[in-house]
Amino acid sequence: MENCADKKFMKEAIKEAKKAYKKDEVPVGAVVVHNGKILGRGHNQVERRESVVAHAEIMAIISATKKLGDWRLTGCSLYVTVEPCFMCFGAIMLSRISRLVYGTSEPEFGFINRVTKLPEGLEITSGLMGNKCRNLLGRFFKRLRQK
Amino acid sequence: MENCADKKFMKEAIKEAKKAYKKDEVPVGAVVVHNGKILGRGHNQVERRESVVAHAEIMAIISATKKLGDWRLTGCSLYVTVEPCFMCFGAIMLSRISRLVYGTSEPEFGFINRVTKLPEGLEITSGLMGNKCRNLLGRFFKRLRQK
Repeated sequence: MENCADKKFMKEAIKEAKKAYKKDEVPVGAVVVHNGKILGRGHNQVERRESVVAHAEIMAIISATKKLGDWRLTGCSLYVTVEPCFMCFGAIMLSRISRLVYGTSEPEFGFINRVTKLPEGLEITSGLMGNKCRNLLGRFFKRLRQK
Repeated sequence: MENCADKKFMKEAIKEAKKAYKKDEVPVGAVVVHNGKILGRGHNQVERRESVVAHAEIMAIISATKKLGDWRLTGCSLYVTVEPCFMCFGAIMLSRISRLVYGTSEPEFGFINRVTKLPEGLEITSGLMGNKCRNLLGRFFKRLRQK
Protein backbone atom coordinates (compact mmCIF):
# COMPACT_ATOMS: atom_id res chain seq x y z
CA MET A 1 0.00 0.00 0.00
CA GLU A 2 1.71 3.13 -1.28
CA ASN A 3 1.25 6.29 0.79
CA CYS A 4 2.73 9.73 1.53
CA ALA A 5 5.17 8.34 4.06
CA ASP A 6 6.36 5.84 1.47
CA LYS A 7 7.19 8.63 -0.96
CA LYS A 8 8.97 10.60 1.74
CA PHE A 9 11.22 7.64 2.56
CA MET A 10 11.81 6.71 -1.07
CA LYS A 11 12.98 10.30 -1.63
CA GLU A 12 15.52 9.71 1.16
CA ALA A 13 16.65 6.50 -0.56
CA ILE A 14 17.04 8.50 -3.79
CA LYS A 15 19.21 11.04 -1.90
CA GLU A 16 21.42 8.11 -0.93
CA ALA A 17 21.51 6.88 -4.54
CA LYS A 18 22.70 10.35 -5.61
CA LYS A 19 25.60 10.09 -3.15
CA ALA A 20 26.67 6.89 -4.96
CA TYR A 21 26.27 8.65 -8.33
CA LYS A 22 28.64 11.42 -7.24
CA LYS A 23 31.21 8.80 -6.23
CA ASP A 24 31.01 7.08 -9.65
CA GLU A 25 29.27 4.09 -8.13
CA VAL A 26 26.12 2.50 -9.60
CA PRO A 27 23.46 4.80 -8.07
CA VAL A 28 21.46 2.71 -5.63
CA GLY A 29 20.36 4.02 -2.25
CA ALA A 30 18.44 2.62 0.72
CA VAL A 31 17.01 3.56 4.10
CA VAL A 32 15.73 1.42 6.98
CA VAL A 33 12.72 2.89 8.75
CA HIS A 34 11.11 2.06 12.08
CA ASN A 35 8.05 3.78 13.54
CA GLY A 36 8.32 6.62 11.03
CA LYS A 37 11.99 7.30 11.72
CA ILE A 38 15.05 6.53 9.64
CA LEU A 39 17.27 4.11 11.57
CA GLY A 40 19.87 3.46 8.90
CA ARG A 41 21.01 4.82 5.54
CA GLY A 42 23.25 3.37 2.85
CA HIS A 43 24.42 3.76 -0.70
CA ASN A 44 26.30 1.50 -3.04
CA GLN A 45 30.07 1.62 -2.43
CA VAL A 46 31.29 -1.59 -4.09
CA GLU A 47 34.15 0.03 -6.00
CA ARG A 48 35.28 2.44 -3.30
CA ARG A 49 35.32 -0.25 -0.60
CA GLU A 50 36.42 -3.00 -2.99
CA SER A 51 33.75 -5.23 -1.53
CA VAL A 52 30.83 -7.03 -3.17
CA VAL A 53 29.04 -6.77 0.15
CA ALA A 54 28.93 -2.96 0.06
CA HIS A 55 25.52 -2.75 -1.63
CA ALA A 56 23.14 0.02 -0.52
CA GLU A 57 20.76 -2.37 1.28
CA ILE A 58 23.55 -4.06 3.26
CA MET A 59 25.06 -0.70 4.23
CA ALA A 60 21.62 0.52 5.42
CA ILE A 61 21.00 -2.73 7.35
CA ILE A 62 24.43 -2.55 9.04
CA SER A 63 23.82 1.10 9.92
CA ALA A 64 20.35 0.34 11.40
CA THR A 65 21.73 -2.67 13.29
CA LYS A 66 24.43 -0.50 14.89
CA LYS A 67 21.87 2.11 15.90
CA LEU A 68 19.53 -0.51 17.42
CA GLY A 69 22.27 -2.67 18.96
CA ASP A 70 20.41 -5.69 17.59
CA TRP A 71 20.62 -7.46 14.24
CA ARG A 72 16.91 -8.30 14.38
CA LEU A 73 15.08 -5.57 12.47
CA THR A 74 11.57 -6.94 13.02
CA GLY A 75 8.98 -4.23 12.37
CA CYS A 76 11.34 -2.24 10.15
CA SER A 77 10.80 -1.32 6.51
CA LEU A 78 13.55 -1.09 3.94
CA TYR A 79 13.21 1.39 1.07
CA VAL A 80 15.57 0.90 -1.82
CA THR A 81 15.70 2.56 -5.24
CA VAL A 82 16.33 -0.66 -7.20
CA GLU A 83 15.04 -4.24 -6.88
CA PRO A 84 17.48 -6.01 -4.55
CA CYS A 85 19.86 -8.67 -5.81
CA PHE A 86 19.91 -12.18 -4.42
CA MET A 87 22.47 -11.37 -1.74
CA CYS A 88 20.60 -8.32 -0.48
CA PHE A 89 17.26 -10.12 -0.54
CA GLY A 90 18.87 -12.81 1.62
CA ALA A 91 20.17 -10.17 4.03
CA ILE A 92 16.67 -8.60 4.18
CA MET A 93 15.18 -11.99 5.11
CA LEU A 94 17.89 -12.76 7.67
CA SER A 95 17.40 -9.33 9.27
CA ARG A 96 13.70 -10.15 9.71
CA ILE A 97 12.73 -6.89 8.04
CA SER A 98 8.93 -6.75 7.78
CA ARG A 99 8.45 -4.66 4.66
CA LEU A 100 10.44 -4.10 1.49
CA VAL A 101 9.62 -1.19 -0.81
CA TYR A 102 11.62 -0.81 -4.00
CA GLY A 103 11.63 1.58 -6.94
CA THR A 104 12.63 0.18 -10.30
CA SER A 105 12.87 -3.46 -11.32
CA GLU A 106 16.18 -5.13 -12.13
CA PRO A 107 15.41 -7.99 -14.54
CA GLU A 108 19.05 -9.05 -14.88
CA PHE A 109 20.17 -9.26 -11.25
CA GLY A 110 16.99 -8.80 -9.18
CA PHE A 111 15.64 -11.48 -6.85
CA ILE A 112 11.99 -11.56 -7.90
CA ASN A 113 12.31 -13.95 -10.85
CA ARG A 114 14.98 -16.05 -9.24
CA VAL A 115 13.28 -17.29 -6.07
CA THR A 116 10.97 -20.28 -6.03
CA LYS A 117 8.88 -18.86 -3.20
CA LEU A 118 8.62 -15.49 -1.53
CA PRO A 119 8.94 -15.63 2.25
CA GLU A 120 5.88 -15.26 4.44
CA GLY A 121 5.98 -12.34 6.83
CA LEU A 122 7.61 -9.97 4.33
CA GLU A 123 5.36 -7.43 2.61
CA ILE A 124 6.75 -6.31 -0.75
CA THR A 125 5.82 -3.14 -2.64
CA SER A 126 7.46 -2.54 -6.02
CA GLY A 127 7.49 0.32 -8.53
CA LEU A 128 7.36 3.21 -6.05
CA MET A 129 8.80 6.26 -7.85
CA GLY A 130 10.24 3.73 -10.28
CA ASN A 131 10.78 6.30 -13.06
CA LYS A 132 12.97 8.55 -10.91
CA CYS A 133 15.03 5.60 -9.70
CA ARG A 134 15.40 4.21 -13.22
CA ASN A 135 16.33 7.59 -14.73
CA LEU A 136 19.17 7.94 -12.26
CA LEU A 137 20.53 4.54 -13.32
CA GLY A 138 20.06 5.47 -17.00
CA ARG A 139 22.01 8.72 -16.58
CA PHE A 140 24.80 6.87 -14.79
CA PHE A 141 25.26 4.23 -17.48
CA LYS A 142 24.99 6.83 -20.26
CA ARG A 143 27.79 8.81 -18.60
CA LEU A 144 29.84 5.63 -18.18
CA ARG A 145 29.56 4.80 -21.89
CA GLN A 146 30.66 8.31 -22.84
CA LYS A 147 33.86 8.08 -20.78
CA MET B 1 34.79 -33.92 -8.73
CA GLU B 2 35.93 -34.66 -5.20
CA ASN B 3 39.67 -35.11 -4.70
CA CYS B 4 42.44 -35.05 -2.07
CA ALA B 5 42.88 -31.29 -2.36
CA ASP B 6 39.15 -30.86 -1.77
CA LYS B 7 39.36 -32.81 1.50
CA LYS B 8 42.38 -30.82 2.60
CA PHE B 9 40.56 -27.53 2.09
CA MET B 10 37.30 -28.76 3.62
CA LYS B 11 39.33 -29.72 6.71
CA GLU B 12 40.49 -26.10 6.85
CA ALA B 13 36.87 -24.93 6.59
CA ILE B 14 36.02 -27.30 9.47
CA LYS B 15 38.83 -25.74 11.53
CA GLU B 16 37.12 -22.40 10.94
CA ALA B 17 33.75 -23.87 11.97
CA LYS B 18 35.33 -25.05 15.23
CA LYS B 19 36.44 -21.48 15.96
CA ALA B 20 32.78 -20.43 15.70
CA TYR B 21 31.78 -23.34 17.97
CA LYS B 22 34.19 -22.18 20.65
CA LYS B 23 32.66 -18.69 20.48
CA ASP B 24 29.13 -20.05 20.94
CA GLU B 25 28.27 -19.21 17.34
CA VAL B 26 26.54 -21.63 14.95
CA PRO B 27 29.58 -23.61 13.73
CA VAL B 28 30.03 -22.79 10.06
CA GLY B 29 33.43 -22.20 8.50
CA ALA B 30 34.73 -21.33 5.04
CA VAL B 31 37.93 -20.82 3.06
CA VAL B 32 38.55 -19.23 -0.34
CA VAL B 33 41.22 -21.01 -2.39
CA HIS B 34 43.13 -19.93 -5.48
CA ASN B 35 45.77 -22.00 -7.26
CA GLY B 36 46.01 -24.39 -4.32
CA LYS B 37 46.50 -21.66 -1.73
CA ILE B 38 44.11 -20.33 0.88
CA LEU B 39 43.43 -16.65 0.15
CA GLY B 40 40.77 -16.03 2.78
CA ARG B 41 39.29 -17.68 5.86
CA GLY B 42 36.13 -17.00 7.80
CA HIS B 43 33.79 -18.33 10.45
CA ASN B 44 30.31 -17.38 11.52
CA GLN B 45 30.32 -14.38 13.91
CA VAL B 46 26.73 -13.14 13.68
CA GLU B 47 26.19 -12.85 17.44
CA ARG B 48 29.62 -11.50 18.33
CA ARG B 49 29.54 -8.84 15.61
CA GLU B 50 25.79 -8.28 15.91
CA SER B 51 25.56 -8.44 12.15
CA VAL B 52 23.54 -10.71 9.87
CA VAL B 53 26.24 -10.21 7.27
CA ALA B 54 28.92 -11.91 9.40
CA HIS B 55 28.36 -15.39 7.94
CA ALA B 56 31.41 -17.60 7.36
CA GLU B 57 31.25 -17.30 3.56
CA ILE B 58 31.05 -13.49 3.61
CA MET B 59 33.91 -13.25 6.11
CA ALA B 60 36.05 -15.52 3.89
CA ILE B 61 35.15 -13.55 0.76
CA ILE B 62 35.99 -10.22 2.44
CA SER B 63 39.28 -11.67 3.70
CA ALA B 64 40.20 -12.98 0.21
CA THR B 65 39.17 -9.69 -1.41
CA LYS B 66 41.46 -7.75 0.94
CA LYS B 67 44.36 -10.08 0.20
CA LEU B 68 43.85 -9.82 -3.57
CA GLY B 69 43.00 -6.12 -3.63
CA ASP B 70 40.15 -6.96 -5.98
CA TRP B 71 36.55 -7.99 -5.33
CA ARG B 72 36.55 -10.20 -8.40
CA LEU B 73 37.42 -13.72 -7.26
CA THR B 74 37.28 -15.36 -10.69
CA GLY B 75 39.12 -18.67 -10.64
CA CYS B 76 38.71 -19.08 -6.89
CA SER B 77 36.93 -21.91 -5.07
CA LEU B 78 34.95 -21.48 -1.87
CA TYR B 79 34.80 -24.37 0.59
CA VAL B 80 32.14 -24.10 3.27
CA THR B 81 30.96 -26.63 5.83
CA VAL B 82 27.23 -25.97 5.33
CA GLU B 83 25.06 -25.23 2.27
CA PRO B 84 25.09 -21.43 1.89
CA CYS B 85 22.00 -19.36 2.59
CA PHE B 86 20.45 -17.07 0.00
CA MET B 87 22.54 -14.07 1.02
CA CYS B 88 25.83 -15.96 0.86
CA PHE B 89 24.94 -17.62 -2.41
CA GLY B 90 24.28 -14.15 -3.81
CA ALA B 91 27.67 -12.95 -2.52
CA ILE B 92 29.34 -16.01 -4.11
CA MET B 93 27.75 -15.16 -7.47
CA LEU B 94 28.62 -11.46 -7.20
CA SER B 95 32.23 -12.32 -6.34
CA ARG B 96 32.44 -14.37 -9.54
CA ILE B 97 33.75 -17.36 -7.60
CA SER B 98 34.18 -20.26 -10.02
CA ARG B 99 33.58 -23.23 -7.74
CA LEU B 100 31.53 -23.85 -4.61
CA VAL B 101 32.14 -26.92 -2.46
CA TYR B 102 29.94 -27.46 0.56
CA GLY B 103 29.64 -30.11 3.27
CA THR B 104 26.19 -30.72 4.68
CA SER B 105 22.87 -29.61 3.25
CA GLU B 106 20.66 -27.03 4.94
CA PRO B 107 17.08 -27.75 3.88
CA GLU B 108 15.60 -24.90 5.93
CA PHE B 109 17.80 -21.96 4.93
CA GLY B 110 19.97 -23.25 2.08
CA PHE B 111 19.83 -21.80 -1.43
CA ILE B 112 19.55 -24.95 -3.50
CA ASN B 113 15.78 -25.44 -3.30
CA ARG B 114 15.02 -21.74 -3.41
CA VAL B 115 16.55 -20.66 -6.69
CA THR B 116 14.75 -21.04 -10.00
CA LYS B 117 17.98 -21.50 -11.93
CA LEU B 118 21.57 -22.16 -10.96
CA PRO B 119 24.03 -19.73 -12.53
CA GLU B 120 26.20 -20.82 -15.40
CA GLY B 121 29.91 -20.62 -14.77
CA LEU B 122 29.67 -21.83 -11.18
CA GLU B 123 30.60 -25.45 -10.50
CA ILE B 124 28.91 -26.82 -7.38
CA THR B 125 29.99 -29.88 -5.36
CA SER B 126 27.87 -30.87 -2.37
CA GLY B 127 28.18 -33.43 0.42
CA LEU B 128 31.97 -33.33 0.85
CA MET B 129 32.71 -34.56 4.39
CA GLY B 130 29.04 -33.88 5.06
CA ASN B 131 28.89 -36.11 8.14
CA LYS B 132 31.69 -34.27 9.93
CA CYS B 133 30.14 -30.89 9.13
CA ARG B 134 26.67 -32.05 10.20
CA ASN B 135 27.93 -33.64 13.44
CA LEU B 136 29.50 -30.34 14.47
CA LEU B 137 26.16 -28.57 13.96
CA GLY B 138 24.36 -31.37 15.85
CA ARG B 139 26.70 -31.08 18.83
CA PHE B 140 26.24 -27.31 18.89
CA PHE B 141 22.45 -27.41 18.93
CA LYS B 142 22.41 -30.24 21.49
CA ARG B 143 24.62 -28.12 23.78
CA LEU B 144 22.37 -25.11 23.18
CA ARG B 145 19.26 -27.06 24.22
CA GLN B 146 20.96 -28.27 27.39
CA LYS B 147 21.78 -24.75 28.53
